[in-house]
Amino acid sequence: VRIAVDAMGGDRGPAAVLAGAADALRQERDVELLLVGDPEVIRSHWPSDLPLPEVEASEGVVRGDEAPVAALRDKPRASLPLTVHLLADGRADAMVSAGSTGVMMAGALLELGLLPGVMRPALATPLVSPLGTQTLLLDVGAHMDARPDVLVQYAYMGSLYAQNVRHIDRPRVGLLNVGTEPGKGNRLVRAAHKLLEGSPLHFVGNVEARDVYRDKADVLVCDGFAGNLVLKSLEGLGLVIRDALRAELTRDLRSKLGAALSAPALRRLARSLDYAETGGAPLFGTRKPVIKCHGASGPKAIRNGIAVAATTVRTRVLERMAEAMARLPARTGEA
Amino acid sequence: VRIAVDAMGGDRGPAAVLAGAADALRQERDVELLLVGDPEVIRSHWPSDLPLPEVEASEGVVRGDEAPVAALRDKPRASLPLTVHLLADGRADAMVSAGSTGVMMAGALLELGLLPGVMRPALATPLVSPLGTQTLLLDVGAHMDARPDVLVQYAYMGSLYAQNVRHIDRPRVGLLNVGTEPGKGNRLVRAAHKLLEGSPLHFVGNVEARDVYRDKADVLVCDGFAGNLVLKSLEGLGLVIRDALRAELTRDLRSKLGAALSAPALRRLARSLDYAETGGAPLFGTRKPVIKCHGASGPKAIRNGIAVAATTVRTRVLERMAEAMARLPARTGEA
Repeated sequence: VRIAVDAMGGDRGPAAVLAGAADALRQERDVELLLVGDPEVIRSHWPSDLPLPEVEASEGVVRGDEAPVAALRDKPRASLPLTVHLLADGRADAMVSAGSTGVMMAGALLELGLLPGVMRPALATPLVSPLGTQTLLLDVGAHMDARPDVLVQYAYMGSLYAQNVRHIDRPRVGLLNVGTEPGKGNRLVRAAHKLLEGSPLHFVGNVEARDVYRDKADVLVCDGFAGNLVLKSLEGLGLVIRDALRAELTRDLRSKLGAALSAPALRRLARSLDYAETGGAPLFGTRKPVIKCHGASGPKAIRNGIAVAATTVRTRVLERMAEAMARLPARTGEA
Repeated sequence: VRIAVDAMGGDRGPAAVLAGAADALRQERDVELLLVGDPEVIRSHWPSDLPLPEVEASEGVVRGDEAPVAALRDKPRASLPLTVHLLADGRADAMVSAGSTGVMMAGALLELGLLPGVMRPALATPLVSPLGTQTLLLDVGAHMDARPDVLVQYAYMGSLYAQNVRHIDRPRVGLLNVGTEPGKGNRLVRAAHKLLEGSPLHFVGNVEARDVYRDKADVLVCDGFAGNLVLKSLEGLGLVIRDALRAELTRDLRSKLGAALSAPALRRLARSLDYAETGGAPLFGTRKPVIKCHGASGPKAIRNGIAVAATTVRTRVLERMAEAMARLPARTGEA
């Protein structure tokens, strides 16, 4: 399995990406890497005990605030667009980047294209709860104005992913909604609810946002606008709580003493709230596996992202998605 | 100021509601209450050192899972429908309930109706951050399929509320979105962004869900589906963290000792995560003030809710909303 890694992407720079890439090589025996970035920088950060993987020299970096299509046009040799291009060119089986989500998606759609039958791509994020359960939330921002039948495709893709990658026999599919009763929600989810009920999927009904961490479903579908809001709310509150906890626990001597003693426990909790620790959100619907890591990814998240990419290739889950989409009935939703 | 209180609503029963109501009477000198519920129950929970307010006898309670319109039709004398009715009848200036949101809204729309010019109601929740800042988020679930011009009305109503109730001279109005750039988001928010930019409001642009606790805006507008998802995500994660913190801090002796020492600090944090502690979400757009308290409200939240109701009446903010809506230009959004 050969995976192209954007070595320059991410807020924490090449050091974090390359440390994670090296860890992945140590762990995943059948993985080869193609590192995309500045060869000097890559060499200087690569651990001396590991042979350097193949390197493809890039020029420059796309910043997070650049307009995706303009960035792709003006900087085709920047590390992220080049990584996508190498994947499209057959130089790798999958790719991983912690760079701009917008550029990654635009590049993937333009250079790789969608699997036959897939109407819209979806970015899927595994929500790992502080209590230890896991739910795949999709779409978290690939497409903003989904139709009901698009949500049904997301449910199929998420379900196949949970079956093949997480080995869940009959994944529970939930619909993110404002209430558990079938009639709840906006036009989009009310229509999607009907379609999902009539599908062969293991649909368990609506799941409220307050229950996303309560193991109600293995796969939770929503439009990209809603999913992004939920994901960012959780992420933002996690960071705020970390800050507030720090402030509370250093307020007086007693709290400081207590904090010192509880430090390992509190650190475990803080880690569980840190999305940059998980890493590895697959983009569904493209012709080849594209894995997005959080912008603030550390080495562990990059290593996870590469592992997810390798599993996606090994399990041929994209081919299974294409087969399933081809078998789906004619489109039934409204715009 | 005379406020009707649904004494039977809420998950924690009449004891919590009545304790909060008594506290409010002790604090707010110009407030009179009209307690709606079972007279026996009310009498048994009312503190002996305070004169019992007027009581209106209700019959039965509406459960949270009942269909709102059916509940209103079949149980007009249940405490929540009766409270709305008494408000509509002029027996009170405002009402407070911790009962079913759906029944409260349906009752308010049917019995009170909307202020002239208001297209859709909005439920507004003050988000109080663990860091101490406050943002009014609306709509959190009154209307599921808002149009762009409806979001603009929400911005006006929220702005007037922040001016009159929180005494913020020029409230910052933000648009809840998936990115800060103007072109971000779904069709609804892209259109709303243009309308808000062209309005005389102090529009500060898009605010991401990860920043709702970072004091980016005083008023944050969104459609009721999105707002409900964000509110419930925050609430759900707060509860999960409370559970995880408890588990982590009782895992071993060292953590237990530390937790005992940090207990006051951790308790302060836990309280700041508890939405049932804040209380007092006003429903905007109805002809009279209707204040919703969280279903799990304790006495403090009920007291806050009554204080919010009293302030809403005193400041005549609803009249100001009606005036502002009448001055708004012709409707410009799409469905």
